Amino acid sequence: MATETETRPWERLREFANGEDTVGLKEFLSSLEPTEAVRAILRLDTDSQEKVLTTLSPAEAADLIEDLPDEQAVEIIENLEPADAASIVTEMQSDEQADLLADMESDDAEAILREMPVEDATEVRQLASYDDNVAGGLMMTEFFKYEENATAGDVLDDLNARADNIDDYFTHYAYVISSWGKLVGVLEVRDLALTPRRTPLAEIMAPAIFVKAETGLDELKGFIDRNFYAAIPVVNRRGSLLGVVRRTAVQEALAERADREMLRMQGIVGGDEIRTLPTLTRSRRRLSWLSVNIVLNIAAASVIALYIDTLEAVIALAVFLPIISDMSGCTGNQAVAVSMRELSLGIVKPFEVLRVWLKEISVGLINGVALGAVLGGVAWAWKGNPYLGLVVGGALALNTLIAVSIGGVVPLMLKRAGVDPALASGPILTTVTDIFGFFLVLSFAALMLPKLT
Amino acid sequence: MATETETRPWERLREFANGEDTVGLKEFLSSLEPTEAVRAILRLDTDSQEKVLTTLSPAEAADLIEDLPDEQAVEIIENLEPADAASIVTEMQSDEQADLLADMESDDAEAILREMPVEDATEVRQLASYDDNVAGGLMMTEFFKYEENATAGDVLDDLNARADNIDDYFTHYAYVISSWGKLVGVLEVRDLALTPRRTPLAEIMAPAIFVKAETGLDELKGFIDRNFYAAIPVVNRRGSLLGVVRRTAVQEALAERADREMLRMQGIVGGDEIRTLPTLTRSRRRLSWLSVNIVLNIAAASVIALYIDTLEAVIALAVFLPIISDMSGCTGNQAVAVSMRELSLGIVKPFEVLRVWLKEISVGLINGVALGAVLGGVAWAWKGNPYLGLVVGGALALNTLIAVSIGGVVPLMLKRAGVDPALASGPILTTVTDIFGFFLVLSFAALMLPKLT
Repeated sequence: MATETETRPWERLREFANGEDTVGLKEFLSSLEPTEAVRAILRLDTDSQEKVLTTLSPAEAADLIEDLPDEQAVEIIENLEPADAASIVTEMQSDEQADLLADMESDDAEAILREMPVEDATEVRQLASYDDNVAGGLMMTEFFKYEENATAGDVLDDLNARADNIDDYFTHYAYVISSWGKLVGVLEVRDLALTPRRTPLAEIMAPAIFVKAETGLDELKGFIDRNFYAAIPVVNRRGSLLGVVRRTAVQEALAERADREMLRMQGIVGGDEIRTLPTLTRSRRRLSWLSVNIVLNIAAASVIALYIDTLEAVIALAVFLPIISDMSGCTGNQAVAVSMRELSLGIVKPFEVLRVWLKEISVGLINGVALGAVLGGVAWAWKGNPYLGLVVGGALALNTLIAVSIGGVVPLMLKRAGVDPALASGPILTTVTDIFGFFLVLSFAALMLPKLT
Repeated sequence: MATETETRPWERLREFANGEDTVGLKEFLSSLEPTEAVRAILRLDTDSQEKVLTTLSPAEAADLIEDLPDEQAVEIIENLEPADAASIVTEMQSDEQADLLADMESDDAEAILREMPVEDATEVRQLASYDDNVAGGLMMTEFFKYEENATAGDVLDDLNARADNIDDYFTHYAYVISSWGKLVGVLEVRDLALTPRRTPLAEIMAPAIFVKAETGLDELKGFIDRNFYAAIPVVNRRGSLLGVVRRTAVQEALAERADREMLRMQGIVGGDEIRTLPTLTRSRRRLSWLSVNIVLNIAAASVIALYIDTLEAVIALAVFLPIISDMSGCTGNQAVAVSMRELSLGIVKPFEVLRVWLKEISVGLINGVALGAVLGGVAWAWKGNPYLGLVVGGALALNTLIAVSIGGVVPLMLKRAGVDPALASGPILTTVTDIFGFFLVLSFAALMLPKLT
């Protein structure tokens, strides 16, 4: 079935890690595609990971760490000696440094910060104080700034002098600040080439469009959608320039959020699972969600227990209970997905509950009748009893209406309440639709019992 | 419940669209945040949308169209007169043009292309011939190229002469081509500022790293993860430069793919639904998936019908059937989500079925025993019969193992088979786990019938 023997780069990497051939190790790693390298690193044990990272130069190790999923990057860095970890972290871009350290245990982060150059450490501490998903948490602090009375020539000379040392800088723009330190304008570095050297920056700069450090990810998305800038300057309340958020950083943060949302909707919570994590950790995290779910399931199914006499009288209903439960879940999930997407595109607002509900019941009505007719027809055909068809089909039709209503509306209400809709929409949906579905089919059956037996 | 009266920008936009105040309309639209403008446009009827777009300048209308979700952008453009549509499309960047026209009915696209300047139309036709998710489909064709015997001064003069007309260009790099038209090097435009004017490009260019037009999205992702370039040049088989793919275009395509994947996993197929679509369209698309699902559900539940005598003897089992079905679905979906994510991060390959399976059964064993103990305990406590607990708990435990195995492995096998795992994993998972779940609990019960009654 599997053809795993085709390539096993992590086994070769492990051999290198256990051997002494450091040149071979470096060459082998750089021969791998980035995702291959990530795959290989993740499958090593902790000791081999440490060996690999400390064999590479700190800059090479930093590149590798930046490619890893966040949680694994944190774990690997935490396992290193603080001094080694500090050497690697120091080589990372400031926005990546802050992300990494903010996700660590604070003791581990402190130990690493103490080993870092004081200036870097201070900067990282400040960046790490912002939330991950605001401009302050996404910005980098390596950028060019000049006072407004400088000239184009001054800037070119300065850039020239620093040319060997600007790898980590954001080099598309230079920012112009007033003598009070406030952001007043922006220059495209490439435009300087076309400008007489003596021109004061104030004459050639464009007015700066900026965001506050507290600006959230959705607003930043709006900003990059509207503007073509490769980066957005970030200012504090006084208007002083703190850093720049690259377009790329915003897009990465959006992708990570979408990724996390997908995992949560499917019941992976408490951390983004990867199968190289220890079995017990994976099991515990998955159980944390499943244990809530089993309680909700038992609660919903206890509705059936209330109608055990009806069920005993019309045992065929037992076949249809799981179908109604499943189908209502599917129908409701479609509505959840559309609401989640419309929320994330910003084309529906959390307060538009009524609008979404009206849009959902119109679809729910059509689909409910269609699905109810199919299931009712099957029930009728199976038992030759049209009333059984009516009970089963009617219950599914009504429950479809309930499912799309809940599925459409619950994500909006959770969002308004500040609860993650990706996490809670599913369990709420299936519990409520199960309860209503079981209740509808069994109470209809109880009412029509004489016709069914 | 709803406070929709707070803001209703689309109603104001409709008033403007029905009125004559074109200046007011323009001002109002530009006062809206991009997502607000998108929201407002989507909620207008077709006539008002047309009115709004043709009131704006073609360039403004193009900006607005680029902000819309793909499917809605296509619909709105298709509804315009071909000449108006062509004016707007001509103002878009070539990569966006090609995307839009490739998604249209070919008749509509042809009508628009015929109204466009011949040169633009030819280019778009060529771009639209590539798949959406390969470098050729993501590239833009507005870029700077110079022959290798040109000098830095030549390039600066040329850029200077074109300065008024390069808004749509990708301006970070200039590409150097041989006299045969082959890509030989790349220049950062801003470096030219620091270079003596007489220097030949061959001396200052860096070797060009490029991709083929057929390079897929995953490879492009690997490329931008590894490199910091803002764009990647795209060449044909001969090595001639065809265009550039911006980093941003790759990230947008990845985000769209993730978005579509989320929708598909939740049963929104046949197009990305937005609630401004006609009710019948939404209903039909959702039903296309639900109708497959109801057939699978009926097939799975027919296992119950085979054991109707057992069920009649131990009616309490009817309460547990939906719980086992639901819980197995949840457990399996967790495994699906982890596999989907590992596949999209590239840290698991489709052939690693055995590895994934081993990782899943270890977690499934622990979680199966835990969940089985809980459900078995509930059953025992409810009916005071330990054998009922054993039957129900044992079936859930075993079915948890089956669910994680299928959930973990099926996405890999679908990927290998070239079927979209986001679409098919869920239905396959729930059908198989339902069948096994019902079979396990009812056949265990049949075996232990004397102890249960």
